[in-house]
Amino acid sequence: MNVKDYMQRVGKAARRASRAMARADTNQKNRALLAMADAIARDQDKLLTANMEDLAAARAAGLEPAMIDRLTLSDKTVAAMAEGLRQIAALPDPVGEMDDFTYRPSGIQLGKMRVPLGVVGIIYEARPNVTADAAGLCLKSGNATILRGGSEAFHSNQAIAACVQEGLRAAGLLTEAVQVIETTDRAAVGELITMPEFVDVIVPRGGKGLIARISSEARVPVIKHLDGNCHVYIDDTANPDKAFNVALNAKTHRYGTCNTMETLLVHEAFAEFILPRLAEAYWEKGVELRGCERTRIILGEKVVPASSEDWDTEYLAPILAIKLVKGLDEAIEHINEHGSHHTDAIITEDYSRARRFLREVDSASVMVNASTRFADGFEYGLGAEIGISTDKIHARGPVGLQGLTSQKWVVLGDGQIRQ
Amino acid sequence: MNVKDYMQRVGKAARRASRAMARADTNQKNRALLAMADAIARDQDKLLTANMEDLAAARAAGLEPAMIDRLTLSDKTVAAMAEGLRQIAALPDPVGEMDDFTYRPSGIQLGKMRVPLGVVGIIYEARPNVTADAAGLCLKSGNATILRGGSEAFHSNQAIAACVQEGLRAAGLLTEAVQVIETTDRAAVGELITMPEFVDVIVPRGGKGLIARISSEARVPVIKHLDGNCHVYIDDTANPDKAFNVALNAKTHRYGTCNTMETLLVHEAFAEFILPRLAEAYWEKGVELRGCERTRIILGEKVVPASSEDWDTEYLAPILAIKLVKGLDEAIEHINEHGSHHTDAIITEDYSRARRFLREVDSASVMVNASTRFADGFEYGLGAEIGISTDKIHARGPVGLQGLTSQKWVVLGDGQIRQ
Repeated sequence: MNVKDYMQRVGKAARRASRAMARADTNQKNRALLAMADAIARDQDKLLTANMEDLAAARAAGLEPAMIDRLTLSDKTVAAMAEGLRQIAALPDPVGEMDDFTYRPSGIQLGKMRVPLGVVGIIYEARPNVTADAAGLCLKSGNATILRGGSEAFHSNQAIAACVQEGLRAAGLLTEAVQVIETTDRAAVGELITMPEFVDVIVPRGGKGLIARISSEARVPVIKHLDGNCHVYIDDTANPDKAFNVALNAKTHRYGTCNTMETLLVHEAFAEFILPRLAEAYWEKGVELRGCERTRIILGEKVVPASSEDWDTEYLAPILAIKLVKGLDEAIEHINEHGSHHTDAIITEDYSRARRFLREVDSASVMVNASTRFADGFEYGLGAEIGISTDKIHARGPVGLQGLTSQKWVVLGDGQIRQ
Repeated sequence: MNVKDYMQRVGKAARRASRAMARADTNQKNRALLAMADAIARDQDKLLTANMEDLAAARAAGLEPAMIDRLTLSDKTVAAMAEGLRQIAALPDPVGEMDDFTYRPSGIQLGKMRVPLGVVGIIYEARPNVTADAAGLCLKSGNATILRGGSEAFHSNQAIAACVQEGLRAAGLLTEAVQVIETTDRAAVGELITMPEFVDVIVPRGGKGLIARISSEARVPVIKHLDGNCHVYIDDTANPDKAFNVALNAKTHRYGTCNTMETLLVHEAFAEFILPRLAEAYWEKGVELRGCERTRIILGEKVVPASSEDWDTEYLAPILAIKLVKGLDEAIEHINEHGSHHTDAIITEDYSRARRFLREVDSASVMVNASTRFADGFEYGLGAEIGISTDKIHARGPVGLQGLTSQKWVVLGDGQIRQ
């Protein structure tokens, strides 16, 4: 099979299906989602068998334990996939929402209508649950989808795809509305990201390397999330309990997530007061602390000296960099310079400083007195998320159904002409 | 001078200036805009002298009359530039707007804040007025700008740049907030569109060739407007006067604009009734008609036979393609297939057909009983526009101040942590 021809066929079918999907009514889409969920729940054993095939090959190939972990399906994760689809069915349909209607001096009435993007290409690593999630979100938002998962999850993905197809058929939708690429040839990705005539946007999900490579080679807009180097800044006006709780939660609630704090900035006048208590709690949880010189003076030699590289690192691990700053200005500058524009929080009781932090920190999510861990589609009430964007164009932060849509202008007239 | 080094310096300075611009308050930005307008009005003679230098070189180089026309400044166009800046000063400042605040079950209060994109690169042809317009829009929306105009307008652009710089200084803003590239070396464009570390978005303004080239080479998101192949569909339920007025206006109000109708679709049951009257009016205005076979049966041999190419052509000239269709389905299919997703209108008194047209036509502006010529930043109340996007990502249709901004998430808490 010629991969280019295959991908062109897939692209053309997706474009055709996207027109039908844009017209599909809410009930029809929800019926498809619920039928997919039912099929997944019913076929649990089939999915687990397919997954075992992938796992055996992955182990034989010596894949890293973390990758094996993400590849593994269980009763619980299969049930979660089905539940995720049911939750998406329960979300309001964003397609066709109209708002902002006003009359213009010419007499035309002008407003906006929310519409699907068209065809969304999703490229992800060997995490089979993404197949169901992404298919569900794209379907509900009225898009056609082309899914390309990691080849290590090939059999799992195809088994999930069968359930997805069954759901589409049950609701009378075109099965081409969700296509899971049937080849593990890497060239398929290269084709997918360079077909602007058939694909409207690419969402890469996975490691930094994958996303950077796709962004640099794509000829199609990319909604990307490169990394999460998040900060908490404890001001000298902070409430100590809030500071302690938030700084501890932001680091230790989960280590491997992109909204985890990686660098703690502390006002120099507050550091001696708050840091010893915090350090003890971090160490108790096994977090390695890497500090600037003044941090080490306060906390002692157990703190590893931080190098300049630490300020730019997303550890995704029980490691925390700590830096003392002169105050708000230095904190904002540090975050804008070294952060990844993902999520940053200030702990303060000072109104004006809170206001400045919110305005001047150039990140997708800016927070006052709350843990960075809240930056998440579920916590924000978007339902599931297709990714977290650190771009500024189109969608910023957690991307849910709305991020998979666009708005067109609607003009209602009575025969108005331009003078 | 090494162009790469020069552009890197420009990029770095723009990135730095963008941070200050994001903080600049509304009054300061408005003062700068008004001071720019005053400087342009005062320096009218200087601008015209610089423009004459460009014009002399352009004539010597044998530039096309249409290009010379766009390059030419006059008392009137200089006054319009100044007035344009004053109008931008009068528009509401989008930066810092906050909305959609709601409490989430976790107790955090979540909303959105509108923020500048950062650094906007504008690439345009030899139209000096774009220098002032684009500088003004980017400034008001809190962005830093890098402007690269056509080399034929070099002296005009530099003279306008001097007025812009004076305005920035007068308001105490960094002069690097608006930089007009000081080299005519084409390599500067190549650098500008491949510096994602310094440039957040590129807006190309100009011909299809320029925009296509930039889109395909850019490593930075592009807000692009490729072409305007706009349609009016006259349904058999149309009010004849509305149909006549709108179809005439959409074609003949201006020939060279992207929101001009290029193909007229007519319901076959209505064609014999409406087309003769319309054709007479078009011919009176010197519009060449190119029709499908059945159009020629109704209107006669004066109608040039349309080839399949005509359906895909943006004439930008007094030429109109006419096609009879069986009804709404064929009209929508034709528009989605051959149109450029810019602006399309239906003329109908039928509620359900109007509703279907609005939902199913996949264009940036969809209209009922109104002329496509309304698709324009001023008519939509955006003030000036930086361009008209036929993309679906980020901004669609006329792009004004809001299209030059993004929204970040704001979280207000009282020490909430993730459970």
